[in-house]
Amino acid sequence: MKSIIPVILCFILSSCATTKLPTISQTSDSSEKTTYTEEEMKSQHPRLSLTSSGVQKIKSQLGSVPLFDKQLKEAKTLVDNAISKGIIVPIPKDMAGGYTHEVHKSNYKIMHKAGRLYQITGEEKYADYVKQMLMEYVVMYPTLPVHPTNRSYATGKIFWQCLNDANWMVFTSQAYDCIYDYLTVEDRSKLETNLFIPFANFLSEENPRFFNRIHNHSTWANAAVGMMALAMDNDTLLSKALYGLQNDGIDASEYDNDGGYIKTEGISTAGFLAQLDYSFSPDGYFAEGPYYLRYAIFPFLVFSHALHNNKPELDIFNYRDGILKKATNTLLQLADSQGRFFPINDAQKGMSYRSYELVDAVDLMYYADDSQDYLLDWAAKQNVVALNEAGFKIAKALASHEAAEPQKKSMLFRDGVEGDGGAVAVMRASNLELLFKFSTQGMGHGHFDRLSYSLYDDVGEIIQDYGAVRWVNVDQKGGGRYLPENKTFGKQSIAHNTIVVNQGSQYEGSVQKGESANPSLLYMDFDNDNVKIISAKDDNAYANTSLQKTLVLIDDKDLSGSLMIDISRINSTDQVSIDIPMWYLGQKMKTSFECQKDAQQLSALGETNGYQHIWKEASCKIDEDNYSFNWFGNEKFYTLHSTALAGDEIIMGRAGANDPNFNLRSDPVLIHRREGVQNATFINLIEAHGTYNRDTEVPLYPYSIIKKIELIIADENYTIFKFSSEKHEWEVMLANENNQKTATHNKVLDGKEYTWNGYYNLNKIKKD
Amino acid sequence: MKSIIPVILCFILSSCATTKLPTISQTSDSSEKTTYTEEEMKSQHPRLSLTSSGVQKIKSQLGSVPLFDKQLKEAKTLVDNAISKGIIVPIPKDMAGGYTHEVHKSNYKIMHKAGRLYQITGEEKYADYVKQMLMEYVVMYPTLPVHPTNRSYATGKIFWQCLNDANWMVFTSQAYDCIYDYLTVEDRSKLETNLFIPFANFLSEENPRFFNRIHNHSTWANAAVGMMALAMDNDTLLSKALYGLQNDGIDASEYDNDGGYIKTEGISTAGFLAQLDYSFSPDGYFAEGPYYLRYAIFPFLVFSHALHNNKPELDIFNYRDGILKKATNTLLQLADSQGRFFPINDAQKGMSYRSYELVDAVDLMYYADDSQDYLLDWAAKQNVVALNEAGFKIAKALASHEAAEPQKKSMLFRDGVEGDGGAVAVMRASNLELLFKFSTQGMGHGHFDRLSYSLYDDVGEIIQDYGAVRWVNVDQKGGGRYLPENKTFGKQSIAHNTIVVNQGSQYEGSVQKGESANPSLLYMDFDNDNVKIISAKDDNAYANTSLQKTLVLIDDKDLSGSLMIDISRINSTDQVSIDIPMWYLGQKMKTSFECQKDAQQLSALGETNGYQHIWKEASCKIDEDNYSFNWFGNEKFYTLHSTALAGDEIIMGRAGANDPNFNLRSDPVLIHRREGVQNATFINLIEAHGTYNRDTEVPLYPYSIIKKIELIIADENYTIFKFSSEKHEWEVMLANENNQKTATHNKVLDGKEYTWNGYYNLNKIKKD
Repeated sequence: MKSIIPVILCFILSSCATTKLPTISQTSDSSEKTTYTEEEMKSQHPRLSLTSSGVQKIKSQLGSVPLFDKQLKEAKTLVDNAISKGIIVPIPKDMAGGYTHEVHKSNYKIMHKAGRLYQITGEEKYADYVKQMLMEYVVMYPTLPVHPTNRSYATGKIFWQCLNDANWMVFTSQAYDCIYDYLTVEDRSKLETNLFIPFANFLSEENPRFFNRIHNHSTWANAAVGMMALAMDNDTLLSKALYGLQNDGIDASEYDNDGGYIKTEGISTAGFLAQLDYSFSPDGYFAEGPYYLRYAIFPFLVFSHALHNNKPELDIFNYRDGILKKATNTLLQLADSQGRFFPINDAQKGMSYRSYELVDAVDLMYYADDSQDYLLDWAAKQNVVALNEAGFKIAKALASHEAAEPQKKSMLFRDGVEGDGGAVAVMRASNLELLFKFSTQGMGHGHFDRLSYSLYDDVGEIIQDYGAVRWVNVDQKGGGRYLPENKTFGKQSIAHNTIVVNQGSQYEGSVQKGESANPSLLYMDFDNDNVKIISAKDDNAYANTSLQKTLVLIDDKDLSGSLMIDISRINSTDQVSIDIPMWYLGQKMKTSFECQKDAQQLSALGETNGYQHIWKEASCKIDEDNYSFNWFGNEKFYTLHSTALAGDEIIMGRAGANDPNFNLRSDPVLIHRREGVQNATFINLIEAHGTYNRDTEVPLYPYSIIKKIELIIADENYTIFKFSSEKHEWEVMLANENNQKTATHNKVLDGKEYTWNGYYNLNKIKKD
Repeated sequence: MKSIIPVILCFILSSCATTKLPTISQTSDSSEKTTYTEEEMKSQHPRLSLTSSGVQKIKSQLGSVPLFDKQLKEAKTLVDNAISKGIIVPIPKDMAGGYTHEVHKSNYKIMHKAGRLYQITGEEKYADYVKQMLMEYVVMYPTLPVHPTNRSYATGKIFWQCLNDANWMVFTSQAYDCIYDYLTVEDRSKLETNLFIPFANFLSEENPRFFNRIHNHSTWANAAVGMMALAMDNDTLLSKALYGLQNDGIDASEYDNDGGYIKTEGISTAGFLAQLDYSFSPDGYFAEGPYYLRYAIFPFLVFSHALHNNKPELDIFNYRDGILKKATNTLLQLADSQGRFFPINDAQKGMSYRSYELVDAVDLMYYADDSQDYLLDWAAKQNVVALNEAGFKIAKALASHEAAEPQKKSMLFRDGVEGDGGAVAVMRASNLELLFKFSTQGMGHGHFDRLSYSLYDDVGEIIQDYGAVRWVNVDQKGGGRYLPENKTFGKQSIAHNTIVVNQGSQYEGSVQKGESANPSLLYMDFDNDNVKIISAKDDNAYANTSLQKTLVLIDDKDLSGSLMIDISRINSTDQVSIDIPMWYLGQKMKTSFECQKDAQQLSALGETNGYQHIWKEASCKIDEDNYSFNWFGNEKFYTLHSTALAGDEIIMGRAGANDPNFNLRSDPVLIHRREGVQNATFINLIEAHGTYNRDTEVPLYPYSIIKKIELIIADENYTIFKFSSEKHEWEVMLANENNQKTATHNKVLDGKEYTWNGYYNLNKIKKD
């Protein structure tokens, strides 16, 4: 009997195969047809991120595209393994990390892959697996109350929050789409009537606070509803997904679990297109930073892919001047030499271009516009592709692509929907990468770190941004949630390489105040191969005080490598205390000043604003007008040269005080403190000059090539300083106020005249 | 005119070419002639580590052995660059790291390479470079007093210590040998009379304390004098090198700079052969540990190579049952998964099989005995070969060798010249490597860490040996010397994963006392694939107290991975306080007991014996008979399960107190303390169970599979305990005294009978 079953199944199901497929014209690779008319699409399945014509293309070339074949094999192993374990659809009960949560999460991921496998391999066991599982959900769903945990502003049914329910639907809509033709009309009717439509209504009409915001939660909601609408061919739901609910009845004062307002002032639209309008800056930057941009971009991509296939008239990949392409490039550029995103704001370190969101982004943006061939280099590094037409296309292109290290540039990314909310900038020199942040507050996930920087080399961090105090998904650490020290330390100004006034945090540590004002760019010039410069100001971070930071990266054959210079200016109407923290990574080797660590006892450095979390290891006085600090980290030698005033204090600190649960890393910091001044200029010059090899035990250039740094002029208009090696002297002249690129500057001191045009001048003099 | 010069030179120098070369018979590769009679050798140059027949062989195959060709090219670039810079032979003046020191060091290295290049390429510029440089030395040397620094027990002339002068001669003898035939009889006579012979006499007759010890310094001295003797064909000097000075007049109470005695009790011989007799244990282990073994082995290798070529009757590679082969294998085995030597005793971390000493060792031992083909896998990983016949032979073999990961085993390496000085053992399971140290004191470089262990996985350290407090060659850190904290912390018992009684160090921290007694092996069994066990005792580390440590490594499919168990037994006639430190690497995730870090202040944990260097971060009480500690390090999750008594204290500490110059790393430790007991048994079970991926943010198995550990019996004869997972229970039964492999053991408790044969029994029970 057994051998006859497949034949009978084929017969029963043969109706599916009668669906009329559009004729695919044979085209060359470079002009493969990727769009169809709405009429063509409506008549067929799959139609979301996989299309029937795409499936034909993939099937006809199986075995000839190595990376795609590899991916397919891996998916088979995964799904076959799941099939052998059987279907489990438990009654929802647990929070994230708990049993029912993890099972339902696994279910939608496996269904998604199984749907693709059915399409690509034609093996019915995959379709049947999805069908059987959906048949379990359709029985259970109508019986479900809202999730018993009730801990979210928008509690879900399958999961503790609607967000996860929306995840379920984004993946499941694609699985349904893939087995649509395998199901009978009765099956479909049952699933749509009892599961998908009520589910979509629950995510939208029944949870307007979740569905109608400008927020990544709503992007997921819109994508979920919209994709299922396309799979079901339901225009009513699709309209809600694209344009939002017409009357949501939400009060302007309502807020969510994280304390964020549901409604954004000045924005009256909602739905997916509004998300595209308001979620990004015109440069594709996202206020919360690259870690969250990576999270937020996924529903944009996956729904856009489906809209591209079904609503070509939206021209979604070119929407808002190609905002998704820009966002993808922004993500790839805002990463260190290992491709790890700069961990600004609330970010867990280590997230990178290898995440599945970036794999999808790279594949899809290449699919959307294959003139962006820089994406091939990234895909080659990822060595993973999405199991859809975009993944297939890029895998095919990779087979004949000679991969190079992806190009990264010095770039500015404006923040704010209109591009007027400050910016983040990344500057790259021959062996250093420097991130400068003077963007908007970044909403609930922002840190009080305007005018902060972090420094990287070919291996990783030199001067770190601490990142978030959180272990994502690690149950042992507060269930993976943000830990208390994230707020009391991670977000505070002293935890960043910025300027801290009166040992307080910027904007009094208030998100609301932080959202009310932004720093502004004074000038920048990234066009010179050897000198890159940027200067920004913030007049609102501290009362009656204006802050300015100018960063310079220099390449010069007479230096030991790239050189970073950080010029901080503070002008206040009051006498203030100023701290310049530097979160270097490594171990102190040598200082120009006497500085011994406290021997018997350590105390916390302060009582609030993050200072309570720093152990004071040493407090030392500077008695000259400059100092140097040489350290060793990651098998390299670095030196900080800094201008000072006699009487300045250097505090050597280490994170970890007032940290009862050992949540903080034991990382070191050097804090340069000056007290009782109205105006101050600090110049920190950082040189990455030496290396150490543990096999030969030979240190190369353990000492800095720079011998001295000297501040010459620091007034309202100009900062002039010089530094020197044994053989050369460099004079640096900066305009502090005038941002005219062609302005002529002239300053005389002690009979010496300094003259230059433009923002700055770098003058090298060979010594006798 | 120009074109005629080479011809004239050839004519002038043609006398060199008349030296009669032995006829090399054409043989197949597998039986290439590598030894010659003394008569054959005497008549030709080069004859040390390069021979004229070897040179012919190399020259005839240039361009066909890729790795050797690469090496040759690199050497050319290096030497050509040095030639272009000219010859500098400054009057000696500086300490190590200073200008004259570094120049003379570079000189002998370049001469050595230039000599080889002359032989292999035939280009006379290389011979001429060596000649010109030697002509500078021959003028300067006779004028030199001893080095002006006068800071060594054996001050040199070119360098601050004779050791470096010996280095110079080991390398220079080879350079001289290579250009011997290029020089005129007059040149040679001048060099030998005014430079080499006085130099060799200075290192031997004039510095008997340096030349006549059993010590790595003397090995260098013997090799230096012996190699130059062979190059010059000077039997008097060669005899001194091999057999030492007959009457050295050294008093038994004299000692060197490190406080070590010059004479070793019970040893009356000296010279190179005596070094081979007394420097190693019969297993090729070296009391100071692998870091120093790597340093010490080099002069053994290089002189042995020359003796092999010139004194075949010594059969040097088989001397003392092939002690150099054993030492090489010992080094390769005493390394972690990355090939880094286990950093026991005074060792800088990171030194590995990639060091030049190991490259030479691997090449030469393969040359000596090519049946040791495991060396090919190591050479493949090194991807560097020596520029001599040994390097050529292995490079040639590599060209057709399919490299695999080198095999590493569970092994015991006995310590002591007679093999009776305890041992170090390395145990390997599927994903753990465990080092156990119960060897001799290790002379001046030993640590007080009998019965200590360190644990490693496929990436590196899990539970570390701190290593030495020293940055070798790093001028900023005490000129690269051992730092004060090496003695006050690095060597002390509390800095190791061992047993500490009454917060004191073993053997009262006295090298002399430590040298007077050794731990002993009770039993070991590494033959079982799934269970490896070793037990050792030390009755002398603390007065009136005996210590025992038993280590077990288990592989079992019902565990999460390899499991390590550490059983510590203490029996004292007094009431003592016991500390069991565990220097885990990473960050605390979760503990079974309440334990909060001190919030506002940290104090040093003690006042002496290393305790003064540990910050006490938390002190917590255990109120059950077991506890667990879960931590995260190196992207992995680990759990310690331990038996306890209610009232035991857990101290969470961190290195760095009383460390004025920031010399210590800020590394964490967990100390299990029990006070006021005469007898105690501690069982620490360490499970490496989980991983974390920063791109997917998915923790896999963040919690231990083991739920409980329970001590059942701990008496004079037996230790019995059990631990369990959800599905299984494991009973472990150990003999504490009886080391008969076939003994039958029987113990009854509460009506339950435990019976087994041999050292141990591991009994797994499936739960219902």
